Order: sequence, then structure tokens, then C-alpha cells
Amino acid sequence: MRMVDIIERKRNGAELTKEELHTFIEGYTKGEIPDYQASAFLMATYFNGMTAKEQATFALEMLHSGDEVDLSLIPGIKVDKHSTGGVGDKTSIPLAPMIAALDIPIPMISGRGLGHTGGTLDKLEAIPGFKVELSEAEFIQQVKDINLAIISATGNIAPADKKLYALRDVTATVDSIPLIAGSIMSKKIASGTDALVLDVKTGSGAFMKTQEKAKALAQAMVEIGKNVGMRCMAVISDMNQPLGNTIGNTLEIEESIEILKGNGPKDITDLVLTLGSQMVVLAGKAETLEQAREMLIEVLVNGKALEKFGDMIEAQGGDRNIIDDYSLMPQAKYQITIKAPKAGYISKMTADELGVASMLLGGGRQSKEDTINYAVGLRLHKKVGDRVEKDEELVTVYSDQKDIEQVEKLILDNIEIGEKTNAVPLIHEIIK
Amino acid sequence: MRMVDIIERKRNGAELTKEELHTFIEGYTKGEIPDYQASAFLMATYFNGMTAKEQATFALEMLHSGDEVDLSLIPGIKVDKHSTGGVGDKTSIPLAPMIAALDIPIPMISGRGLGHTGGTLDKLEAIPGFKVELSEAEFIQQVKDINLAIISATGNIAPADKKLYALRDVTATVDSIPLIAGSIMSKKIASGTDALVLDVKTGSGAFMKTQEKAKALAQAMVEIGKNVGMRCMAVISDMNQPLGNTIGNTLEIEESIEILKGNGPKDITDLVLTLGSQMVVLAGKAETLEQAREMLIEVLVNGKALEKFGDMIEAQGGDRNIIDDYSLMPQAKYQITIKAPKAGYISKMTADELGVASMLLGGGRQSKEDTINYAVGLRLHKKVGDRVEKDEELVTVYSDQKDIEQVEKLILDNIEIGEKTNAVPLIHEIIK
Repeated sequence: MRMVDIIERKRNGAELTKEELHTFIEGYTKGEIPDYQASAFLMATYFNGMTAKEQATFALEMLHSGDEVDLSLIPGIKVDKHSTGGVGDKTSIPLAPMIAALDIPIPMISGRGLGHTGGTLDKLEAIPGFKVELSEAEFIQQVKDINLAIISATGNIAPADKKLYALRDVTATVDSIPLIAGSIMSKKIASGTDALVLDVKTGSGAFMKTQEKAKALAQAMVEIGKNVGMRCMAVISDMNQPLGNTIGNTLEIEESIEILKGNGPKDITDLVLTLGSQMVVLAGKAETLEQAREMLIEVLVNGKALEKFGDMIEAQGGDRNIIDDYSLMPQAKYQITIKAPKAGYISKMTADELGVASMLLGGGRQSKEDTINYAVGLRLHKKVGDRVEKDEELVTVYSDQKDIEQVEKLILDNIEIGEKTNAVPLIHEIIK
Repeated sequence: MRMVDIIERKRNGAELTKEELHTFIEGYTKGEIPDYQASAFLMATYFNGMTAKEQATFALEMLHSGDEVDLSLIPGIKVDKHSTGGVGDKTSIPLAPMIAALDIPIPMISGRGLGHTGGTLDKLEAIPGFKVELSEAEFIQQVKDINLAIISATGNIAPADKKLYALRDVTATVDSIPLIAGSIMSKKIASGTDALVLDVKTGSGAFMKTQEKAKALAQAMVEIGKNVGMRCMAVISDMNQPLGNTIGNTLEIEESIEILKGNGPKDITDLVLTLGSQMVVLAGKAETLEQAREMLIEVLVNGKALEKFGDMIEAQGGDRNIIDDYSLMPQAKYQITIKAPKAGYISKMTADELGVASMLLGGGRQSKEDTINYAVGLRLHKKVGDRVEKDEELVTVYSDQKDIEQVEKLILDNIEIGEKTNAVPLIHEIIK
């Protein structure tokens, strides 16, 4: 079987067989199929897509290109959550301890941020001493002990995806639903979870700009998951404006703790409860979503979730005192207030550009090699639908530099003050 | 300007600018843009095509990637002919001396065959001693002396095309009109001709299987030529059955000489006169096609074209005695006759498969490294529309092996004997 014939069949819109996808993925991982054939294949896939069957096979072949984490030593139904990435999205940080507090094991393998989106691991590293690199044995032991660990990928997980992802990045083939779905799901299946809730973001700050595309991606991923017997569902949630009131690593850890203390902003608390309820039901700990939501609220109210978060920090080498003293985390030199240039209602906050503003302050990476300044970021005093008076505080910029002219302009250009509008609904759709 | 952005724009269907195409072609030729980005670009072009303006720029950028032959030392309007390749297509061999005999300079840079199609240079090399590799100075001197030379490409002609062609071959991106048009025309413009007649083949033995695609390719090429001020037109001719009655190198030289002696098969003689008339008009040597055709018939009848062919053979180191003694060329050990299995009319002769039959005998190349057996091939005793009786001679196979079972089966499978049908028209369309 020659790779050129496989490319030609994909180019002609044929459905590829398991053998063909295996030949490609195995050959490419081993370096027997060159990058130039892989990129032609990726571009043909960009144009012709994949059938549901091909998508599932493609993800599985990428999974089989590397190691799988064996979580069978951890009793119970393990659940995980994955977000396609957004601005101000710290959901995992309060959510994971809430789930763990309900005695549901949550072995979470998470990622880092790039461009305008932040990453859970980067945020956790704002906590002094916090280690995200555990061995597989340490990871399993910690989940057995406290039901909870959030780490970076261990070992040789889906090397085909790693290689293909790097290639997609430089060949304009990132934006393809079967390729995105295969990339995410191969890693999630390899991570050994039994149940998975996907948070697929849509809107200006998300990778999927339209709800239609977000839905197609959600359906592709849920189908791949179900195909391997995983309990899997997706929530399509809004990412037109940032999630919560903070962007930046220290600031988002603070906000996560506030959520666990019951003082979080409404939007992100709602999202945490929505995703969490689905996880609790998938784990078989509640019959209905309403029941699950009540259980989650209970662990917020009784402090068990906050306690669990502290346990995780301690288990992973961090200083749990940050929970009561945020100043133990890196602090920015300057807090600069941006005021509303006129009165009105906030009608739009462009999430990706506000993410870029935080990145420009040093809070995110423009390229993979960049280091992160944990202290910097933005605190939003208003969200879409809110009333604002002229010269009222709009945004506080946490910066290590006094001159923030460029960032200030970017922020003001991307917050529209206009007529009264309704707040954007946060949850668009549920895909099962 | 980043290559990934250029790929993305092509992927999104945008019209690329001169600067973008220049960045790609120059960077790729220099090895600064890797194959994997070039192949993604090629596949995006396969799907989204190019506008007329892009096609012209693309061809010119490939042209400018290397050297151009300077034919300005040769007085007069230089004409050339290019065929997109077919089975039994020896047109250039009688045509070029006919044109030269009318005192029109014809500096022809030709190619070799691959797969089921033959190449002019391979055919000429069946002539003992014939050299196709001349220096540029020798080439120009010979055209000045006798108006005629047929050689292989000299120097560093369109290296971008050479590199891209090799890449297209292994990435399933050969079959794309702007890429084919750019490849052919960049080399033809670089060869320095003033006027060009394109013979675009259509049908089973051609690269363009449908007349619609052949027309699109012809239009693309003519437009590119005109864009650089070349006198350029195209004939779309049929390649459903082989051209003439022979396939194979020695056999096709024999047939070419028979055409020059006025004894050639009707179909190929017609095609030679059609293409030739256009060339004579483009060169400004006749006002009308009818006048040009008469002039060409005259040089056949008075022997001047045959004499010119002899002069070229001699000038390029070959033995001109082959003109009167075909046995001086390589001869096959066996001539094996295949007889008609039943009576009827020839309703179909699948050109590409008969080309493959000749290749399997050793007369063509399966891969670029293969050597050629000049002696072998097929002589067709019947063509589409001819009456045949049971056991009448259908094909003579010229072979160096006695056992030709596989080849015989292939031939019989691809010659249909059925009801009386009309002969296929040879010229489908003229594109100016």
C-alpha cells in the first residue's frame, strides 16, 4: 500500500479503510512516511473531511501510536473534563476539587496555553512550589489517596498526534474538524478516563467561531468517545466574552478559590455547576442533573471542595496557604485602572483580543518557548449587559511595566459601550 | 511574508499576489521553504485552482527560477510544438523537418516518456549514433545551419518546476490544471521560442481524460503564452486510440519516415498537417491555413522534408542511412501475430492499455531509472471503424521474448470488436 495512493483516495473523497489509516499513522510515526506526504494528506482532509467511521479509526490509530495510561488500579468510574480553550477559562481548577469532594476520582491530564488562550497547568504553576510533572505511579497513587491530580502528559502519549500537530501548525491545516477531534480524543482516550465531559467553546475567543462548527466538533468527539465505550458528552458554551472577571494566572487562581468559597462570578460558577453536574451523572453518583447540582453546591457550602483543593496543592508540592493569602502568589508591580470613556451598557467584549492584551503583558505565550509572567493580567469590573457610567472603573490592568499604552488601546478598542443589550446565554447546547 | 499564511490564503480561495507566488517559488527553489509546506500548497491548489492571473504569474515565477535559452542569434520567427503526451504520438519527428524545410527555424527542446506514453527523445535514440544532448551553443548553431534541432533540455531550465514536479508525483497533486499548465509553459517560455502550437490530447490514452478538462488546460496554457507575448494556440486532438499504426521506438521512427515519404497512415498524417499549418501561419510564412497545408504537402512530395530529416540525423551524429534501411535500427527477435478472435468492426482500442503493453515488452519506462528496449513494440493492422474478419491479423507484437501471454491478453482485452461504428474524429477543437 503506497502513501501516494492513500492521499489520492482521500483527495478523491473516498472513505479510507482501517488499513490505510494505520499505514499512514504507523508509517508517519516511525518516520517512514515523510512530512511532505503527511501534509498533502492533511490538506486533502481539510477539504474532504472524514466520515464518522474514519474519524473514529483515525483517533484510535493515533492513540495506538503510543502509550496508554492504565488507571485500572484506581477503583470507581474515573471522570475527566476537557475544554477546547478560551479566555479566562479557569473552569477545571475549581471544578476538579468539587468532583473529587464527591468521592469521584478525577485524574486530569491537562495542557498549557498558547496565543490568546490560557492553560490550566500555567495557572496552577502560579502557586509557589506546585509541580505538574508527576510520574505515572505518583499520579495514580495521588488519585487513589485524594481522588484528584492535575498533571501534564506523562510518557509517550499519542506521538503521532504530537508530530502531526506540529506539522498542521505550519501547513495551514489546523482548522479541520476531524483533525482537531482526532487530536483531542486520541490523547483523552490514552489518558485512561472512563467518562469525559467536553466543553466546546464557541465565539470570538474560541477556536470554533460559529456555533455550527462547534456543534460539528462536539458531535465528532462524542462519537469517537462512545465508539471506544467511553461515557462521553459535550456542552457547547459561549466564548464571545471572557469567562469570569479575570485573565492571567495568579488572578485566575484567586478567582478559582473565590468560586470554591462561594463568592465566584455568576457566569463561571454556572458553567462549573453545569459541567460538574454532567460529570457527576456520568460517574453514576446522581440520577438527575438537578440532584448532581445540589450535591456540588453542598461541597461548596460545607467547604469540602476548598479543602480538597488545598489537599491537591499540598500533594503536588505547593503552598496551600495561598488559599487564605493570595499575596503569597506572584504579584504585579502596578495596578492601573482603565476608566469608561462614556456612559452606557457594555454591548461587546471581544474575548480573543482581551486574551491578547493579557499575553502582551507577559501572561501568555506567543510561541511555545516563551516564559510566562504569572503576576500580570486583567480584572474586568464589567461584563456584557452591565451598566457603566463615564469614568467608572472598567478594567484593572496588573502589569510589571508602567507604560501600558498599547495594551490600554487594545482593551478600549475591544470593549463596546452602547445601548442596553441582553447578556449572552452561556450554555448554547448539550450534545450527547 | 510567512509561507503558512500563503498556504492559508490559497486554502481559503484567495487570489495570490505576485509577491506571494514569488516568495513561494524562490523560497522553495532555494530550499528555504520545506517540501511539506510546498505539498500543502499544491494540494490546496488542487482543490481551489488558480485564476488566469495567478496561473500566468506562477508560470513566470517558475521560469525565473532558472536559466532561459537565448535564441536571439537565430534570425526569423522560431516556432515549436508541444504535445501533452499520448500513445503512438510520433508527430514531432516528421513535423519538425517539414517546418524546417519551409525555412522556418524550429529549435525543439523535447522530453522522454514515462508510463504508457512515449517520448520524442527516446524514439530518436533508436537511430544509431543519434545524440540528443547538445550544448546551447551547438543547439543554436545547428538551428542556424539547418533550421532544425531536437534536443533534451540544456542547463538549469525552470528548476522550481523540476523540484515541484517530483513532489507532485508523490503527493497526488499531478492532476491539477494550473500546475500542469505552469509546468509546461514555464519550460516552453524558457526555451526561447517565439511561437508555440500546443497539441492537447484527450481520451483514454491522454492525461486529460475528458474534452472539457483538455479544453481548460489548453486555455490556461494559451493564456500564459499570450501573456508573455508568445504567439500561441492549441489543438485538442483525440487520444482514445493510439495515433498511427505503431507503438515502440524503432517502429515509430519507421512510421515517421513513411509519413515523410508520403506513405503514412491517414490519422497521423492529418494531425501533422493540421498542427503544421498552424505553425506555418504563426511563423508568418502563410496567410491562411489552406495555403500552409499546401506548402507542407509540397515539401513531402518534393522530398525536401525527408532530406531535412536526414540532415538533422547527420548533424546530431546519427546514421542517416536508416532512412532507406530500417534494419539499421535495433530489431526485435520475434514478430508474433495476434489474430482477431471474431469478425466484426473495431469499436474501441484503449490507447493507454496498448501503451502499457508496449511498456511491458520493454519499450517504455515504468520508473525514471528504467532503460529502454528500442526494438520492441506493436504494429496495429486495424484501427477503430475498420472491418476485421475472424483470424485476420490484428496486431503484430515485436518482442525479444517468445512468451508474450500477458501482453497478448492485455492487447485482446483492450481491442473491442463489435458493430459498425464511425471512426473517432481526430481534431476536437482549436483554442486560440
